[in-house]
Amino acid sequence: MADQAFLLPTKAIICEVAPRDGFQAEPEWIPTDKKVEMIRSLAKTGITTMEVTSFVHPKAIPQLKDAEEVVSRVHDIENLHLRALVPNLTGAQRAVNAGVKKLKLMLSATDSHSLSNANATVIEAQNKLEPIIEYANQNDTKVGGSISVAFGCPYEGKVGVNQLIPILDRYQKMGIEEVSLADTTGMATPKQVYETLGVLKETYPTLTFSMHFHNTRGMALANTISALQQGVIRFDSSIAGLGGCPYAPGASGNVATEDLVHFLHENGVDTGINLSSVITTAKEVKNIIGHDGGSFILQAGPSADLHSKPKSQQKINN
Amino acid sequence: MADQAFLLPTKAIICEVAPRDGFQAEPEWIPTDKKVEMIRSLAKTGITTMEVTSFVHPKAIPQLKDAEEVVSRVHDIENLHLRALVPNLTGAQRAVNAGVKKLKLMLSATDSHSLSNANATVIEAQNKLEPIIEYANQNDTKVGGSISVAFGCPYEGKVGVNQLIPILDRYQKMGIEEVSLADTTGMATPKQVYETLGVLKETYPTLTFSMHFHNTRGMALANTISALQQGVIRFDSSIAGLGGCPYAPGASGNVATEDLVHFLHENGVDTGINLSSVITTAKEVKNIIGHDGGSFILQAGPSADLHSKPKSQQKINN
Repeated sequence: MADQAFLLPTKAIICEVAPRDGFQAEPEWIPTDKKVEMIRSLAKTGITTMEVTSFVHPKAIPQLKDAEEVVSRVHDIENLHLRALVPNLTGAQRAVNAGVKKLKLMLSATDSHSLSNANATVIEAQNKLEPIIEYANQNDTKVGGSISVAFGCPYEGKVGVNQLIPILDRYQKMGIEEVSLADTTGMATPKQVYETLGVLKETYPTLTFSMHFHNTRGMALANTISALQQGVIRFDSSIAGLGGCPYAPGASGNVATEDLVHFLHENGVDTGINLSSVITTAKEVKNIIGHDGGSFILQAGPSADLHSKPKSQQKINN
Repeated sequence: MADQAFLLPTKAIICEVAPRDGFQAEPEWIPTDKKVEMIRSLAKTGITTMEVTSFVHPKAIPQLKDAEEVVSRVHDIENLHLRALVPNLTGAQRAVNAGVKKLKLMLSATDSHSLSNANATVIEAQNKLEPIIEYANQNDTKVGGSISVAFGCPYEGKVGVNQLIPILDRYQKMGIEEVSLADTTGMATPKQVYETLGVLKETYPTLTFSMHFHNTRGMALANTISALQQGVIRFDSSIAGLGGCPYAPGASGNVATEDLVHFLHENGVDTGINLSSVITTAKEVKNIIGHDGGSFILQAGPSADLHSKPKSQQKINN
């Protein structure tokens, strides 16, 4: 237990999800111009992967009704891999017609969450994915899978690795090669992430996993270490921590991109992202949106920003 | 790197520090009655170790000028090990006269922080400790050491293990057997904590280390895992996260006791503390103080508190 080497991969890849997961949680309409401005600003920080919107029914999430326009105005950004979430075949058709080259599918690990989110049991939801994948294949469009509440469900509690296996089996049968495991409500623990990924990496050696951690209970960065220690190097995060937790009003949602980049760099893991650019963009985004979603680095600044040495003074801070 | 066993010690010991580290940061006077009420409430949660005050000069920290009275009114609590911080010999004499049986000494890892906090270089501050220890020994009182900014200094940056070794050498020569390593401004990383403790545990096999993590940059719980993985099982925390960071107004300070207890229990590490009692006490403390210091569990509730299954509805939360 007391080895002294703390081995982590030297690189990680961050996918920025605020334009989808963050914006959708905002009750006030964000003008398309502002969305495009924020996406363009994010792309200048060195972020190379971004989930830019969701092609969901406009009545379900009015905030993202401008999905086509957003994509049309950002898909020319150089060196940026865009993806969009699609909940159904109609969404996939809209996305492909808009020029999206990478779709992300949705599934929940539990029936309760699936019924709540997609109005279908897990198996019913899986059955609806096949025509989407077929359509994407016919249209030269990549597809990645995802599993929401992959570690814990707010209705059913802990989610064990045995609940993930049939879902991953079916994803694999459908030809999916990349799956995002989402800790949708911040219930995952480092022990659970480490042990779950240990099993999954062994069971699915050809699948690429990415992690989508929420910081609802403060555990996102600890979970990130566990994933890195299992060789998983893809992480979603959201600028300024945008995207709350619908089950706990006011609680933190997605781990903030600036917190994750700072954390990874401080632990010797490169992201190719410029931390100070990300912080500048996070401040802009916070100004546009009117709040952040629980960002530490926006409050405290990076560890490396030192203070000037003070004149001696009597006080005790330990 | 891909082992599947995630080994942690089965038990950890939490020292509650809000009555000292939290209260001292509050500008509004907290009446002694309220302090005593909060300490008594904390002691009912299963917390067995508490830093109840500091015997510092009343002009330096007026909030703790009632140190004697606080101690006299709580030192009869059963099964509670009290300690008090003492900055100098006068403080130690006051503490011993008040009946405190365990003193905590202060030192900083860097001259800049030491000058700022104690108006002395590290070596000057060390020289002042010997008479305190001698006095304590003569009066049958235990003494523990501490090192502030043990992982990073807001004026000097990263603190390497080589800066800790001369301080620990001297502590050991002075007969100190327990040292608290404080990440005073939240600059430590899991990699650094793991590697630092690896060296220190090997160099000082007979010293008992405890960790005092601040969550200023969101890394406290990740750092806790690294310490546990090095076999360190003693952690300070502060109810409701009280105790800010003087270098970043509004930023989080001490890791919240309810967040730490929740985290440890969810990772299979027992604390002997009742989580729901701690949450109840955190709410009381928040009401008395008027705010919290960045508590996740006060916002989100524990992972295990499930929501009732909803009627099916169309929305997307991933």
